[in-house]
Amino acid sequence: MNDFKVTPWEVSGSIDYEKLIKQFGTSRIDGKLTERLEKACGPLHPMLRRGFFFSHRDLNLALDDHEKGKGFFLYTGRKPSKGMHIGHMVPLTLTKWLQDKFKCNLYIEITDDEGFLHKRDYSWSDVQAAAAENIADIAAIGFDPDRTFIFKDSEYIRNMYPLLLRAARKITGSTVKAVFGFDDATNIGLSMYPAIQTIPSMFEKKRCLIPCAIDQDNYWRIQRDIAEGLGFHKTSAIHSRFLPPLQGVEGKMSSSAGAQTAILLTDDEKQVKKKINKYAFSGGKDTVEEHRKLGGDPTIDVPFQWLSIMFEEDDKKLAQIREDYVSGKILSGEMKGILIEKVNEFLLSHKKARENAQVEKMMYSGKLAKKMWDTVHE
Amino acid sequence: MNDFKVTPWEVSGSIDYEKLIKQFGTSRIDGKLTERLEKACGPLHPMLRRGFFFSHRDLNLALDDHEKGKGFFLYTGRKPSKGMHIGHMVPLTLTKWLQDKFKCNLYIEITDDEGFLHKRDYSWSDVQAAAAENIADIAAIGFDPDRTFIFKDSEYIRNMYPLLLRAARKITGSTVKAVFGFDDATNIGLSMYPAIQTIPSMFEKKRCLIPCAIDQDNYWRIQRDIAEGLGFHKTSAIHSRFLPPLQGVEGKMSSSAGAQTAILLTDDEKQVKKKINKYAFSGGKDTVEEHRKLGGDPTIDVPFQWLSIMFEEDDKKLAQIREDYVSGKILSGEMKGILIEKVNEFLLSHKKARENAQVEKMMYSGKLAKKMWDTVHE
Repeated sequence: MNDFKVTPWEVSGSIDYEKLIKQFGTSRIDGKLTERLEKACGPLHPMLRRGFFFSHRDLNLALDDHEKGKGFFLYTGRKPSKGMHIGHMVPLTLTKWLQDKFKCNLYIEITDDEGFLHKRDYSWSDVQAAAAENIADIAAIGFDPDRTFIFKDSEYIRNMYPLLLRAARKITGSTVKAVFGFDDATNIGLSMYPAIQTIPSMFEKKRCLIPCAIDQDNYWRIQRDIAEGLGFHKTSAIHSRFLPPLQGVEGKMSSSAGAQTAILLTDDEKQVKKKINKYAFSGGKDTVEEHRKLGGDPTIDVPFQWLSIMFEEDDKKLAQIREDYVSGKILSGEMKGILIEKVNEFLLSHKKARENAQVEKMMYSGKLAKKMWDTVHE
Repeated sequence: MNDFKVTPWEVSGSIDYEKLIKQFGTSRIDGKLTERLEKACGPLHPMLRRGFFFSHRDLNLALDDHEKGKGFFLYTGRKPSKGMHIGHMVPLTLTKWLQDKFKCNLYIEITDDEGFLHKRDYSWSDVQAAAAENIADIAAIGFDPDRTFIFKDSEYIRNMYPLLLRAARKITGSTVKAVFGFDDATNIGLSMYPAIQTIPSMFEKKRCLIPCAIDQDNYWRIQRDIAEGLGFHKTSAIHSRFLPPLQGVEGKMSSSAGAQTAILLTDDEKQVKKKINKYAFSGGKDTVEEHRKLGGDPTIDVPFQWLSIMFEEDDKKLAQIREDYVSGKILSGEMKGILIEKVNEFLLSHKKARENAQVEKMMYSGKLAKKMWDTVHE
């Protein structure tokens, strides 16, 4: 049967997203909600209007607060890893769109502590090197430098510490065992870590909205257990599906699982071409003749899925591509060609943006960053 | 039988110190060691020559390093609590003596995080208020302001964080359960805390010597398990007995257990007189006649014990007092009178020293403090 697993550290199998909504106790993003979003933002981002962000917690309350003029703030984060890939850009891309639309503050936590605690063979300088690369990639997305604070836990820990202690005091060993599958062999740093990831959701007395992949929801369940007792709001969240790995529509992309699953942000045009042509799972038929006659299946075709999720914003064009694929007019190789061009455009523009990214402002000298460095959270 | 318990959070019963040495796997401070100490320092502090510090780990190695010219450094600490009492001054007093003799650096960790995590009903501002008071009392002891760094964990956490993560990654939940009696109901902050207490023992690449009461040894067992793997020395330690509480020679003094057990540093002359006269357990006989005839028992007489441990440095005078007590010449009330005078002298001079204590220098601007604020420990 369809066995699947979704935790912050493992995503595998053919994921039944409807089941996840029930399992995690979240809510589906329904038509009523997308209408409210549209009223607030204008035309929706493709990831929202195509249902790639499919689940939420209390998004309605965040919209209430917006409508009342109280507003909300955004929070996302990243555990440093050696190569960022296209999949990592998914929640960040929607986060930028939300910041543009709602003109709100955004906190981006770089969890260098988690990265280090999670991997025994990672040295501190490995983690720091990865963090620096990742931050440059994140800043390149072009968030508002005066409304965005990117920070490493290791640098900001002192400012978070009193609130962190208050949070940690409310979380028992039993809870993190149940929620994260920790056991007595887990190191005490990692067992304590979940408290750290809840803190930025309490950086303001407003409600927080977290755009993330569904596998991060465990943290927000803990946050929602403790936040009100600490004098803050339960966080809201919107959850995405996973961008499928190249080799097929199961599991999620991973930098460490090797070249065949992911396009890295550092891949050059040739590598992109080679990876997609060689590894991308196709929904096409085995022979051209058969394909022309029977057509391809876009629901399992990874290139089409990527276009739909991330690389073809134009609904009409996407519909045309689907139609032509189903009818057999577009061959699998041609579908791959369309994606290769789009991915290379994206990477080229990302690389340019990275060179001019306002890292320093988002981390230290921008309006929000400056304010944050003067704040100790209690 | 003699049931007793010694953990960092509970000391009770009639403590068999010989048994503790075996139980904890430490070593007795024997004549050979005190001779070596005497060679290095001159005449020993009464707490050493009278065996109040009775146990050690690797003190010989610290002395080796001293003799080789490599030297060692000192580390002690304090969990903030509302009132410091005489018992808290015991390890600190010997620490000052050691710093004077060995002219070495001293780190004093104020564990405001532990204080907060340990007590559910303590607010952050409660802990901070207690910390400020405690620091003033500690600084009053008169450590060398250029060789002493007093810091609160909450302020220095960023500087310790990379090394803390390295330490925490090496300690499992099983270990802290076994060593500290934690369980799954323990909050994740407290479970992680033992890693924090090991860090200052790795502030330098030299060997660390920790003067402490024997109940703190659990932490050093953990430190000694991980230090070499992190590139540092296993710490040395010397362990004291407990200053007996006023009401009798069992357990240890506690500020929170009420007025009858402890003399607080803030007690005035009248309070000292009243507490000692009213609560101090006496080794004397029930009637004056009987006492004159049979004499008192100094081994269970708390006033005599306090004189011996802390308040009468002159061996000859102490021997005379003992003799006169055993012979019945000194009555219980007179013994109490001797102690009252000594304690009041001590507190008066402490209060004066507190007014001129170099808190700011030891925390921020002294030679060692300045260097420490520029250091991130990895």
